Amino acid sequence: MSLITLLTDFGTADGYVGEMKGVIYAMLPQAQVVDIAHDVAPQDVDGARLAIARYWRRFPLGTTHVVVVDPGVGTSRAALAVESDGRFLVGPDNGVLSPALLRAEVRVVELAIPSQASATFHGRDVFAPAAARLAGGSPLEALGTTVETPVLRRTPEAKRLADGTVAGEVITVDRFGNLITNLVAPRGGSLVLGDRVVPIVRSYGDVPAGDIVAVVGSSGLLEIAVRDGSAGARLGVTRGAAVVLRPAPAGS
Amino acid sequence: MSLITLLTDFGTADGYVGEMKGVIYAMLPQAQVVDIAHDVAPQDVDGARLAIARYWRRFPLGTTHVVVVDPGVGTSRAALAVESDGRFLVGPDNGVLSPALLRAEVRVVELAIPSQASATFHGRDVFAPAAARLAGGSPLEALGTTVETPVLRRTPEAKRLADGTVAGEVITVDRFGNLITNLVAPRGGSLVLGDRVVPIVRSYGDVPAGDIVAVVGSSGLLEIAVRDGSAGARLGVTRGAAVVLRPAPAGS
Amino acid sequence: MSLITLLTDFGTADGYVGEMKGVIYAMLPQAQVVDIAHDVAPQDVDGARLAIARYWRRFPLGTTHVVVVDPGVGTSRAALAVESDGRFLVGPDNGVLSPALLRAEVRVVELAIPSQASATFHGRDVFAPAAARLAGGSPLEALGTTVETPVLRRTPEAKRLADGTVAGEVITVDRFGNLITNLVAPRGGSLVLGDRVVPIVRSYGDVPAGDIVAVVGSSGLLEIAVRDGSAGARLGVTRGAAVVLRPAPAGS
Repeated sequence: MSLITLLTDFGTADGYVGEMKGVIYAMLPQAQVVDIAHDVAPQDVDGARLAIARYWRRFPLGTTHVVVVDPGVGTSRAALAVESDGRFLVGPDNGVLSPALLRAEVRVVELAIPSQASATFHGRDVFAPAAARLAGGSPLEALGTTVETPVLRRTPEAKRLADGTVAGEVITVDRFGNLITNLVAPRGGSLVLGDRVVPIVRSYGDVPAGDIVAVVGSSGLLEIAVRDGSAGARLGVTRGAAVVLRPAPAGS
Repeated sequence: MSLITLLTDFGTADGYVGEMKGVIYAMLPQAQVVDIAHDVAPQDVDGARLAIARYWRRFPLGTTHVVVVDPGVGTSRAALAVESDGRFLVGPDNGVLSPALLRAEVRVVELAIPSQASATFHGRDVFAPAAARLAGGSPLEALGTTVETPVLRRTPEAKRLADGTVAGEVITVDRFGNLITNLVAPRGGSLVLGDRVVPIVRSYGDVPAGDIVAVVGSSGLLEIAVRDGSAGARLGVTRGAAVVLRPAPAGS
Repeated sequence: MSLITLLTDFGTADGYVGEMKGVIYAMLPQAQVVDIAHDVAPQDVDGARLAIARYWRRFPLGTTHVVVVDPGVGTSRAALAVESDGRFLVGPDNGVLSPALLRAEVRVVELAIPSQASATFHGRDVFAPAAARLAGGSPLEALGTTVETPVLRRTPEAKRLADGTVAGEVITVDRFGNLITNLVAPRGGSLVLGDRVVPIVRSYGDVPAGDIVAVVGSSGLLEIAVRDGSAGARLGVTRGAAVVLRPAPAGS
């Protein structure tokens, strides 16, 4: 098995992803290339980072994840290959690989940029070949020299305030319009978003269609949703909006 | 061969589909996961049902089709696994699987929901694991208990009227703006849409660019199209619009 | 290995691509179907042609490329299978396959249209079966009769003018808003677009965010870009816009 996943902001219609797949299959015919997404918003490093956090460790040991959301292509930013928790990742040194870089056991190397590489398309000329080599069995160290301090990006941490509330924010809005926050689920309580108080419920099934509720989402974070609707559209809220968690009264 | 197809309304950029693929490959490394679509309109159960009707029996015997268009996740709706015409399907009990459920020989079981399953993401925690088990050879009965009366959804039937015409409707509008109706092809005749009479022709090639025509589409139903254009955009018609079929005069 | 790639303008939500994949896997279970793109703008033959030019020769020898951007389906346009540079291609005879047809060694046959084929969906009924046969080892000649003069479409050529400048145009705008031209990279010089003079630089890294520059893109053609932005959105430029290349003064 030589699983290689691809996450890019290239779209597909221009053929860029096709080129990357061609390079991989030409180097490693037994590869199994798996699309994650190519419709990441152009140059949205944080959106890609949050997506990677979701899926990278779900795949089996030995999987190679390619991530190309790379506004700095053609600048001096490094190109990385990473081994973390038994998976490999390749991508630019702009923090997008942070979910893997922040694990305890991680090794990172800087990929050499071939002299003939395009200045605008390292996905094809640097990252795809590196992924094919890793998936084909090359050891990480064969691909480049060790990097000690890769760029890291972190989801902002929620802050506990003196009055017992917790100040957080909307870290992303998903396709359904769910507002994913950086708040960890308490037992009960409510979220405050602007002048609105949103009850925390166990699941959408607890409320009628159209109600605005908060639930614990599938990555363990609180999210604000409209049952059978879009909270993003209904509330006009985007990434970065402030949200406050009011815990339930003690004993409730 | 362990073909597993995926149809969802998750989009791809958020990483939810990536999580499902990771779960499948981790459980069944020899799986071959095939994307059908992830851009079904959010919570559009009928749109997904019509798509499934097109493709599910085209795939070889033994294929497992995963369908997650699931506005009821987290409610008491059941999660199903189905065996029909030699293929397996998994998805929510909301009628989306009706094309397979309406076949003569069908077996249906209700999947257990693991206690640790997310209340918002059964695609990852219920349906993907069930698909991996079925594709890996588990018998249907090993996955749950028999369901006798799953939820069914049907395409509305066209009605023959006393004057010999047939009253139907637009059941979906495809990416090209073709208006797919629930009317079966007659020999000749015309369609009436609002105050417009649209001739039924054999193929686009019979008319000049820009003409509005009806043709027998690839699933045997009449569809209204604009050659080299979009009937949906040109006519402003959406799903549910009434269409009347006027058969050709006898002997014509 | 039986790699089959798919490029269409079908979108995916309607299930048409699902049908094509089902047909292929039913005929050739060992196929490895690779999505290139399904979001080509409806009926954009030139956009598809430019995408194909990028990827078709990146794939290994023996790969079969399926291309269905086919506004003429149901007319008398021929359906083609092509062998070129060790790869196979199938698609309509509308010029979309030109990147392969313009190679020195190319063989082309016209596919028979089965009598039961839909008049609107040759992707499913003609091209997918032909691809499965080619990928399964059938020789090209077994699929049809030789075609001597397939339809060709070419990217417009830039023209050198008497004053030493070169008149070109924008041939496509990619997802990032980069304006890809038909001008080959000189050493230095600048591009003139409307009343704007755009410097040619080596890479985005040479300029600050927000600057409008021209760089040599990944297919060797000059493209106009905004670092960390979209030139298409910023300049309001679309396919076909005139661009003039002013070479650098001699000796510079």
